[in-house]
Amino acid sequence: MLSNSSLYAAIDLGSNSFHMLVVREVSGTIQTIARIKRKVRLAAGLNHSSYQLSDEAMNRGWQCLHLFSEQLQDIPPQQIRVVATATLRIATNGEIFLKKAQQILGCAVSVISGEEEARLIYHGVAHTTGGSDKRLVVDIGGGSTELITGSGAQTTSLFSLSMGCVTWLERFFSDRCLGQHNFEQAEQAARAMLRPVADTLRQQGWETCVGASGTVQALQEIMVTQGMDELITLSKLQQLKQRAIQCDKLEELEIEGLTLERALVFPSGLSILIAIFKELQINAMTLAGGALREGLVYGMMHLPVDRDVRLRTLHSVQRRFNIDVAQAERVRQLALDFMQQVSQSWELDERCRLLLESACLAHEIGLSVDFKQAPQHAAYLIRHLDLPGFTPAQKNLLATLLQNQSGNIDLAQLSQQNAIPLQLAERLCRLLRLALIFASRRRADALPDVRLQADNDVLQLSLPVGWLETHPLRKALLDQESHYQSYVHWPLIIA
Amino acid sequence: MLSNSSLYAAIDLGSNSFHMLVVREVSGTIQTIARIKRKVRLAAGLNHSSYQLSDEAMNRGWQCLHLFSEQLQDIPPQQIRVVATATLRIATNGEIFLKKAQQILGCAVSVISGEEEARLIYHGVAHTTGGSDKRLVVDIGGGSTELITGSGAQTTSLFSLSMGCVTWLERFFSDRCLGQHNFEQAEQAARAMLRPVADTLRQQGWETCVGASGTVQALQEIMVTQGMDELITLSKLQQLKQRAIQCDKLEELEIEGLTLERALVFPSGLSILIAIFKELQINAMTLAGGALREGLVYGMMHLPVDRDVRLRTLHSVQRRFNIDVAQAERVRQLALDFMQQVSQSWELDERCRLLLESACLAHEIGLSVDFKQAPQHAAYLIRHLDLPGFTPAQKNLLATLLQNQSGNIDLAQLSQQNAIPLQLAERLCRLLRLALIFASRRRADALPDVRLQADNDVLQLSLPVGWLETHPLRKALLDQESHYQSYVHWPLIIA
Repeated sequence: MLSNSSLYAAIDLGSNSFHMLVVREVSGTIQTIARIKRKVRLAAGLNHSSYQLSDEAMNRGWQCLHLFSEQLQDIPPQQIRVVATATLRIATNGEIFLKKAQQILGCAVSVISGEEEARLIYHGVAHTTGGSDKRLVVDIGGGSTELITGSGAQTTSLFSLSMGCVTWLERFFSDRCLGQHNFEQAEQAARAMLRPVADTLRQQGWETCVGASGTVQALQEIMVTQGMDELITLSKLQQLKQRAIQCDKLEELEIEGLTLERALVFPSGLSILIAIFKELQINAMTLAGGALREGLVYGMMHLPVDRDVRLRTLHSVQRRFNIDVAQAERVRQLALDFMQQVSQSWELDERCRLLLESACLAHEIGLSVDFKQAPQHAAYLIRHLDLPGFTPAQKNLLATLLQNQSGNIDLAQLSQQNAIPLQLAERLCRLLRLALIFASRRRADALPDVRLQADNDVLQLSLPVGWLETHPLRKALLDQESHYQSYVHWPLIIA
Repeated sequence: MLSNSSLYAAIDLGSNSFHMLVVREVSGTIQTIARIKRKVRLAAGLNHSSYQLSDEAMNRGWQCLHLFSEQLQDIPPQQIRVVATATLRIATNGEIFLKKAQQILGCAVSVISGEEEARLIYHGVAHTTGGSDKRLVVDIGGGSTELITGSGAQTTSLFSLSMGCVTWLERFFSDRCLGQHNFEQAEQAARAMLRPVADTLRQQGWETCVGASGTVQALQEIMVTQGMDELITLSKLQQLKQRAIQCDKLEELEIEGLTLERALVFPSGLSILIAIFKELQINAMTLAGGALREGLVYGMMHLPVDRDVRLRTLHSVQRRFNIDVAQAERVRQLALDFMQQVSQSWELDERCRLLLESACLAHEIGLSVDFKQAPQHAAYLIRHLDLPGFTPAQKNLLATLLQNQSGNIDLAQLSQQNAIPLQLAERLCRLLRLALIFASRRRADALPDVRLQADNDVLQLSLPVGWLETHPLRKALLDQESHYQSYVHWPLIIA
């Protein structure tokens, strides 16, 4: 089934942490086997004038690599890539560190340029993130920040700037004070770094803006914890800055949803991000599904960048969980037909269409666990699967729709998702449930001509004369469905 | 991926309920697609002297078949089997019912003999139930009770007796009274039915006794709810009878874990089961994984009866969830080697060996969901998967072991399973965790010679001199493991 020859490893020796990612390919997507992170804080050991790495910092690094190496020995060398970034690019004694590092790992370590790093990050994002494929990618590392525009698999401009959350912490928050003044200085310095490249980036343009790295991850966690939607906007960033200023001291920084581990470099990262939003006039940003390490492993696997990451993900899920593809497709077509009929009165847009389609394609995933409570199993799987192309909020919505695909409707659950407004989620739920009932015979030729009309929340469903009488199972299902929907005040009239 | 041509349906027209089971084959096991049950109460419409079915009863039956037929039309006819049992065997106007039934369903309905029913039940059990393959199978239906002995796929004796929980309800509990007297009468009558066949069954003999049907299912649910182990014994049955007698009236019957749906025929079924335990001198019985309908579908699929149902199930799970088989096997061998070394002092028996092996073979199933929280996902899947050959308590133990395969140990969880004594479960958990650490490199040639010695709960682990120094990752893992185990008072000494 699997031997070590199907394993791939990517290691990235960053300025703040060293990371190792071990994966294998399963049905066209990667499955993570191991993920190890060690805070080596290489950048903290870099002398500010001589740019020499201290012995302690190097020792911390080597010790970490000893750990990594034990797992690495079992992976074919051509399936390992080890890259070093910002700090090792500039350390004057980097050679000493690298020589021993290669000895320990038993394989080559490439110090990659900022541009190469940016290119890899872009590919990692392109392989793992949904939305329009004309994108701006932002990655704030410990010692450098990458900004890339691209379209599909192609980058159109890329920049690596020498500012990062670790270096900005040391330059602007070394007194551990979270005052307005420090933030102001940090932000101004970042804007000065950005100004020379802003025009080029803005000229290339983008339809979606995606952020990678710990700062954006931390923002995502904060917003989820605080029950906000997942779009990062300038006004949210400004609010968080004000909150940080109120805390006064770095040691006393407390924001709901911000973990201890991410707190130290959060204010410096935040000030860089605010500068980026302002200089590039970004409206909104979402979290990337992957970055540098994912770029490395997808690159080794020679998987093409799909136009639609979401579709690739769903197809892989269908294969992995033995989903009846023909039935999924039947349900999708029915649901889209139903949606078409009411999209105007119900104000269902393109985003809704994508989400409804995704729910249809995966709706039977719960059967892979058991027929009993299949909708609950479906929700569990979708909630926990790594689904490149879907944001956490979208996964949450899909899980909620699948949990409510049949049987009693749990309104509380539908209202806990925050990917789209509650009313739209409810409407998608209704369409999905009806499509499932009509597709229940698992054949395309047994579908009647169903007419739907929506008037606010009242949904009227018309069938050819006599159809109900000759289809007692589906009549029974529809009668019951009408009760289920009425029970949560969704009037469903069957005529 | 799947079309309707891979679907199979089994319908059984029983005396109390009609059931439809629709399945498809996935990796050598069946996956349930639909399961519909309707309480048609055919037996209740049978006149006691003329043995004529009433019009009402027949109409209830036909109405139900209309529902079934809609789904049935989409399945190839040679992959459908419809059988009728006790009541339709004896109804004098059964032909009338059957003629219209076949019209509605569009396929043949076979009225099967008691012996044929017994044979199918035995095969359904053999395909879905673990334990020794020299077995006694007991199935208490609405109108008949089947008793079968067999070895592997072969039945050695089979009997179908005209007593069932519906007919016994009507004969002995028609006054709705749960007094000692009614129970006594019901039991004596059942023993009288059993006496002529008891000798033959006992002569064939068995190593395990397995019960199918609603009565045994109800007992299982009661025992799980009340926190008992899952072995049905005569003393437990007697206790439940006393509890029922205290309730006095059938309408007031209340036993923790007994669902309303099963309550009506529970006392009559219980009295038959007690009679069976006494006449056949049964020590203990467990719940079957399937019976008549499973016998029908496995029969159509021509799947062989394996010697070890559990192993077939685990291999299918490995295939379905893309488990790294080589790694599972490595962990299994290591764990069994470790177990061998301490089995005497830790009193680990054959049953423990089987459970530890099963845990090893499935331990990476959680990776199919995500690397993050993989042990939690593994526990969820194992708890909810249909695993032919494993009893609910065994599934629960496996889930608990997998949840605790790494990281912090949750003693409360281990103590919630009731398949084996807590101390044994703890010991299996320790062995599994150690095997995983040593196998973490995913290759057989990287394993050191590990010596284990157990003195009560103190486990001493010895390694070749110098091994720890040259394997820092596993040294780190072992040091951490020693802390995890010590924290729950499982002393682990590494030397």
